[in-house]
Amino acid sequence: MEVFHLNILNIAAVLLAAYLGGLAIRKMGYPAILGELLIGIILGPGLLGVLEYSESIKVLAEIGIILLMVYIGMEIDFHDLKKASWPGLLAAIGGFFVPFALGYFTIVWYGGTRMSGLFVAIAIGVTSLATKSRILIDLKLLNTRIAYVLMAGALISDTLALVIFSGITNFAESSSIDSGALLLIGVKILAFFGITIGIGLLLLPRLGRYISQSGLKNSTAYFTMILIVTFGYCELAELAGMHSILGAFMAGLFLKDQLFPRKISKELNKAFYDVSIGFMAPIFFVSAGFFVDITVFQTDLWLLILITFLAIIGKILGTALFYLPSRNGWREGITIGTGMNGRGAVEIIIAEIGLTMGIIDQTIFSILVFMAIFTTLTVPVLLNWTSKWLRRRGELVYMDKRRGTLIVGVNPLSLLLAEKLATKIPVTLIDNNPERVQQARQSSLNAIQGNALNEDLLAELKPENIASFIGLTTNSQVNLLAAQLAHDSFLIPQVYVAIAQGESAVGSELLKKSNAAHLFAPAFNMVRWFQLIRDQQTQLTTVAVTNKTTGAAWCSKQAIDFQQSLPLLIEAEDQSLRPFHSDEQLETNERLWVLKKTGD
Amino acid sequence: MEVFHLNILNIAAVLLAAYLGGLAIRKMGYPAILGELLIGIILGPGLLGVLEYSESIKVLAEIGIILLMVYIGMEIDFHDLKKASWPGLLAAIGGFFVPFALGYFTIVWYGGTRMSGLFVAIAIGVTSLATKSRILIDLKLLNTRIAYVLMAGALISDTLALVIFSGITNFAESSSIDSGALLLIGVKILAFFGITIGIGLLLLPRLGRYISQSGLKNSTAYFTMILIVTFGYCELAELAGMHSILGAFMAGLFLKDQLFPRKISKELNKAFYDVSIGFMAPIFFVSAGFFVDITVFQTDLWLLILITFLAIIGKILGTALFYLPSRNGWREGITIGTGMNGRGAVEIIIAEIGLTMGIIDQTIFSILVFMAIFTTLTVPVLLNWTSKWLRRRGELVYMDKRRGTLIVGVNPLSLLLAEKLATKIPVTLIDNNPERVQQARQSSLNAIQGNALNEDLLAELKPENIASFIGLTTNSQVNLLAAQLAHDSFLIPQVYVAIAQGESAVGSELLKKSNAAHLFAPAFNMVRWFQLIRDQQTQLTTVAVTNKTTGAAWCSKQAIDFQQSLPLLIEAEDQSLRPFHSDEQLETNERLWVLKKTGD
Repeated sequence: MEVFHLNILNIAAVLLAAYLGGLAIRKMGYPAILGELLIGIILGPGLLGVLEYSESIKVLAEIGIILLMVYIGMEIDFHDLKKASWPGLLAAIGGFFVPFALGYFTIVWYGGTRMSGLFVAIAIGVTSLATKSRILIDLKLLNTRIAYVLMAGALISDTLALVIFSGITNFAESSSIDSGALLLIGVKILAFFGITIGIGLLLLPRLGRYISQSGLKNSTAYFTMILIVTFGYCELAELAGMHSILGAFMAGLFLKDQLFPRKISKELNKAFYDVSIGFMAPIFFVSAGFFVDITVFQTDLWLLILITFLAIIGKILGTALFYLPSRNGWREGITIGTGMNGRGAVEIIIAEIGLTMGIIDQTIFSILVFMAIFTTLTVPVLLNWTSKWLRRRGELVYMDKRRGTLIVGVNPLSLLLAEKLATKIPVTLIDNNPERVQQARQSSLNAIQGNALNEDLLAELKPENIASFIGLTTNSQVNLLAAQLAHDSFLIPQVYVAIAQGESAVGSELLKKSNAAHLFAPAFNMVRWFQLIRDQQTQLTTVAVTNKTTGAAWCSKQAIDFQQSLPLLIEAEDQSLRPFHSDEQLETNERLWVLKKTGD
Repeated sequence: MEVFHLNILNIAAVLLAAYLGGLAIRKMGYPAILGELLIGIILGPGLLGVLEYSESIKVLAEIGIILLMVYIGMEIDFHDLKKASWPGLLAAIGGFFVPFALGYFTIVWYGGTRMSGLFVAIAIGVTSLATKSRILIDLKLLNTRIAYVLMAGALISDTLALVIFSGITNFAESSSIDSGALLLIGVKILAFFGITIGIGLLLLPRLGRYISQSGLKNSTAYFTMILIVTFGYCELAELAGMHSILGAFMAGLFLKDQLFPRKISKELNKAFYDVSIGFMAPIFFVSAGFFVDITVFQTDLWLLILITFLAIIGKILGTALFYLPSRNGWREGITIGTGMNGRGAVEIIIAEIGLTMGIIDQTIFSILVFMAIFTTLTVPVLLNWTSKWLRRRGELVYMDKRRGTLIVGVNPLSLLLAEKLATKIPVTLIDNNPERVQQARQSSLNAIQGNALNEDLLAELKPENIASFIGLTTNSQVNLLAAQLAHDSFLIPQVYVAIAQGESAVGSELLKKSNAAHLFAPAFNMVRWFQLIRDQQTQLTTVAVTNKTTGAAWCSKQAIDFQQSLPLLIEAEDQSLRPFHSDEQLETNERLWVLKKTGD
């Protein structure tokens, strides 16, 4: 019964293809967008013809772009910028303008219009934001200076690209370029940014407060409001002669955390993510694949190779060159260049707009898509090489900021742990009980009286400086909930939870969700160990690790009986200490600090 | 720059109109859908022409219908059915088929085709599900037999309407109706239900388990999967010659709680709700308003009045008549009929499909929309009258099921409270500490050792039988979190939280979100009161309420000093007891049980 205009089967098929394509490529360690583009190319009308382009796909894809841009805007955290603003700016400018210039001149030299040259230039200059953190975690770079510069650089580079893009599309629309037209365009762009920033800074927070105070519990009304603001910003962008994606991006910048109560913001963010990344954006990327003509490999292979080559070389060398004034060394510049080499959502969106506007043709569009795929493929490989190279040379600089440890629960075990750790890093203990807090302070430890389940208290402890969180009260459930709070609300990267014997079944799902690790042992008799420590029936010994293994494998190989020995800490070759847990990777020559029950 | 096909301004305007229309009508106590329809009628192309119909509005509206039907299916809880299956079935059948028959014969007698008669008949027979609970809460009917019958009745009635609708649209498509065609249609319908139910019962749970086990943390992938299943089910419906909304409804029936980990299910439900109710469904309802021709008030006023009249009379009398065998009395039947008189989303969807298929014309469509608006407007008014009538006659039957009280924390105060309450209703105490649990049991109270923050433990306590939850440990944060769990995960209707002195700032946002009330006092010195009770320095006294007031107003008028007196319980005229809290409404002749410090 074909009443709807929707071709349901086609929408289902596009979504399924996007899902499977994304899943497959993610398993290989690449961002889903690559898989979505590739599956679109393969199954699309150009090649196998399983999927087709239709009005409904088009509408969903276009709204998908808008929602995706809002999400990209939402994700931009100005705090990230502050952490590495100067080197980040250098990297962004070099990494953007050098490939930009190379791309522009190549296209013009190749006989393209200046306008198509500018589009290609932006597409080559852009850096993808989306996939950074995953790769940084995999390569264990999260706490390095490189990570901060990469984040800030990608962010500035994307913003730069969008601003320049807004100017260019304005030119593309105006028929003649005289000084009057130029002035008008300038005024329109300024007015757009003035109005959107004004609304964002002045009006939206008031609206947010007003609605919060009106006691609206239902976050759905907020969701609708965010959509209305988004489409309103899009319309403002169009009125100013710019593309609506710029409005969506600006809307995203202001539609974030501070606007609404924290819980609602989190829910909204999740819903926005689900709708954009889980529904409409994949439809856009698959359908972008539909317009790729794979015959460019035959007809324009040299141009494809040239553009990809310039994109990679321009990005890496441009970044490294402009990065020199940061005095962080040219090797770090090269490393950052390899990390910024990926192209992602923004590039594909810009290329698709260029194609739709008729500024670039299908050949150039296809080349830009393949360039995005190839450059993104290089990132993990090249960044792995360059970061190992830095590490080997001892030039990998760690940032001091996030190094503290927060331990919840004061007891003999946590005191032992805290005393050991405090020799290397700042440690803070939290307990509800004033006497126990006093006890910790007597051991010259930094201790705070309060409830670890209280979000506001945690917020005061500068969680952005805390690298690991240890839940070590006798109440496993409290440990789990506090860990979840630390992980979900404050993004503390490493979370450890002690589980009391007999409660191991409790919350294993929660544990997985918070990305938390079982502290010391899967579940152990905490209270008994407290007693042993109090009675001085324990002894702290060290054991060298003889070969690379995991915590669990090591325990089972050494036949550790958690009644007799409790592995507490791992000491790395550089003498840094980290808590022991089952999933932890142990390297050769690291040493384990194991608490042993002494004979009585 | 009009590159997109989207008319962004129009989408923004439609959303804004839907939001404001829905908001305004909700303030008046009616469901948002009425406001959305009305604003669509007023601002649409027919009248003011501010909003326009476009391809993108159409696509969004059509996907909106699908997502809305999934949501309606998701919301159907087979447990609700069990509670009142027999009277619910009676009410549903009477309330559906009597107006169905009246509508059919009216249209045919009026010269309409039999097919249009069937469409009108279904539209008149349908009952709206969406707005029930709000009205039931407002009229304080939540725990009555009426509420259970209404829920079950609306549910069965909607399912019935959809199944009959699927048969009818199948007929509408086939050119000749001979026995062979009939057989084929029957086989197709059976095959559709067989396949969708089979997949839903056998395949989806396996898929859910498989994905859960694969350790997928990101609920977005689940969201995408649900969409794929949904569109797949829609396609199955179309293959079987039925409308895709039926597929979406069936998908919703199976895409629910048990399928995925509980937390993820909740997030998914929220995201689905946001996208359907917060984004696309309002676009559908506004655009449905576009097709309403208000000149029917001049041209076909009598038909409009007749259909609305038959809808109301048919629904109420039909329900009451068929409800007689339940032996619950004809007055209760009338009351249930008035409660089921609303028409909502499903009716508008069916009418819109009839219009799109050309089976009904714009006049009939407009009449059906106005009929939906008018009948829905009657519900709060009529149900208020009829339920008051029942209440006055003492015929309002309360269901026993949900009456237990769950108290977290065993301490002198909670023991005192529990002993009092236990004389009237089942009370269960929970505490982590085995000794305290033992203590409660010595007072012949029902007590359980365990952690109230453990979702699984709560799930075992049959939360569906619990009417109120009291968090009364010394840890205010635990009280709040447990209350939130009780409210959010187990929908326990009344939640009370004790807040210790000095922690009143903590979690007030959380408190509001959980719809919880401060137990006894805004914040009081719990430990001191424990001590006073232990030292037998307290005395329980009763005070009569002299005029209607709130808990807070009463306290301030009586100049209650929470150091000296602590209001614990309210005894209603029927001797039922409920915990005291600030926002509670006190009626004249109710009595307060106040704990007083005795002079020492």
